[in-house]
Amino acid sequence: MPHINVDENLPGIRALMAFSPDTATPMGELANLLLRTSDTLSMADRELIGTYVSYLNDCFYCQQSHGAIAVCYLDGDTELVEQVKKDYAGADISPKLKALLTIAGSVQKGGKFVTEEQVAAAKELGATDKDIHDTVLIAAAFCMFNRYVDGLASNTPTDLSSYPLRAQQIVERGYGNYIFSNKQPVAENS
Amino acid sequence: MPHINVDENLPGIRALMAFSPDTATPMGELANLLLRTSDTLSMADRELIGTYVSYLNDCFYCQQSHGAIAVCYLDGDTELVEQVKKDYAGADISPKLKALLTIAGSVQKGGKFVTEEQVAAAKELGATDKDIHDTVLIAAAFCMFNRYVDGLASNTPTDLSSYPLRAQQIVERGYGNYIFSNKQPVAENS
Repeated sequence: MPHINVDENLPGIRALMAFSPDTATPMGELANLLLRTSDTLSMADRELIGTYVSYLNDCFYCQQSHGAIAVCYLDGDTELVEQVKKDYAGADISPKLKALLTIAGSVQKGGKFVTEEQVAAAKELGATDKDIHDTVLIAAAFCMFNRYVDGLASNTPTDLSSYPLRAQQIVERGYGNYIFSNKQPVAENS
Repeated sequence: MPHINVDENLPGIRALMAFSPDTATPMGELANLLLRTSDTLSMADRELIGTYVSYLNDCFYCQQSHGAIAVCYLDGDTELVEQVKKDYAGADISPKLKALLTIAGSVQKGGKFVTEEQVAAAKELGATDKDIHDTVLIAAAFCMFNRYVDGLASNTPTDLSSYPLRAQQIVERGYGNYIFSNKQPVAENS
C-alpha cells in the first residue's frame, strides 16, 4: 500500500505524478529529452540503460515498464532485454553500449564510482562526450525515478501482461502529462 | 578533471548544465518546485534535506552549495547545518523535520529502505502527505543531482568562501537558466 494517499487506479509513478502534477511536468520533460532522443545513442540504447539501472536498484515497476519499452524498439526481443539486465557483457549489443552500461552501473553505486578508465574505454569504442553525458544523466535520473516509486511504495502491477500495452503508448506518444491524466483502471491502462 | 569537455570556468553542475542546456531546463524547474516552495516545509527545511542527502552521497559540491543556501535561510547558522549533516537527531530542529530526515536517509540508500514505521512516525509528528511526498522526491532528486555532478567528475571549488556568494544569488533569484549562462570566472561567480 502506498505511503501516501494516491489514486489506487494508477500504477507506479503515474499515481505519484497525479498526486503532484507540478513536479510531474519537468520530470516528464526530462524523461522525453533523455529517452526519446535518437542520435549516436538510439532510443533502444537509452531505454536499455534505464532498464539496467532500474534492475540494479531492484525497482520492479521501472524495470518492467522500461524493459517493455526497450522490447518495442528491439522488435520484440524480450530475451535481449533480459540478458542486458543479467549479463550485458555476454549480450548481443555493441561494444560501445557495453562500455556505457559499465559506466551506468558505476553511477548506480554512486557518482564517484565512475573511473577515468571506464570513460576512456567508452571513448575508445566510439562514445562521444554527449553519449557519456547522456549515459551518466540517464543512470542518475533513474536513481531518482526508482527511489521516487519505491520510496513512496507505489502500487506495482504484478500482471506482466499489462506492461507491454502501456509500453506501446509510450513508444507512440512519448512521456508526457497524459500519463497521469488518463484515469482508466490499472488493468486496462497500465 | 571532468570526464567530458565542459567549460572550465563553471563549477559543479553549472558546467554540465551549460554543456546540456536542454536537460538543464527541466532540472532547474524541478529544483525550483522542490526547494523554492514554502508551505508546511520551509525552504530551510527543504535545503537541509538536500544537504543531508548530498552529505550521505559524499558529494562535496552539492553539500557545500546547498548547505550554504540553508545557512542563508537560517540567518547564518552554519553550525546548525553542520550538525544536521553529522547528527541531525541531536540538532535543534523540529521533531517532524528529524522524522523526515530519517526518511530522506532511507531514500538515499534505496527506495525500499523507507519503512511504514518511519512514515507513521513522521505523520504522528504532524507531517502531511505532501511533506512526505516532497521529502522522498527531494532526497531522490539529490540522488540524481549528486550522481550527475560526481559521475562526470565536475570541477569542484575547494575554496569554501566561494559558496556563500553563490548561495546568496540562489536565495535572491532561485534556480534558473541564469546559473549556467553566466560565464564569469569561478572565483568571482561560483
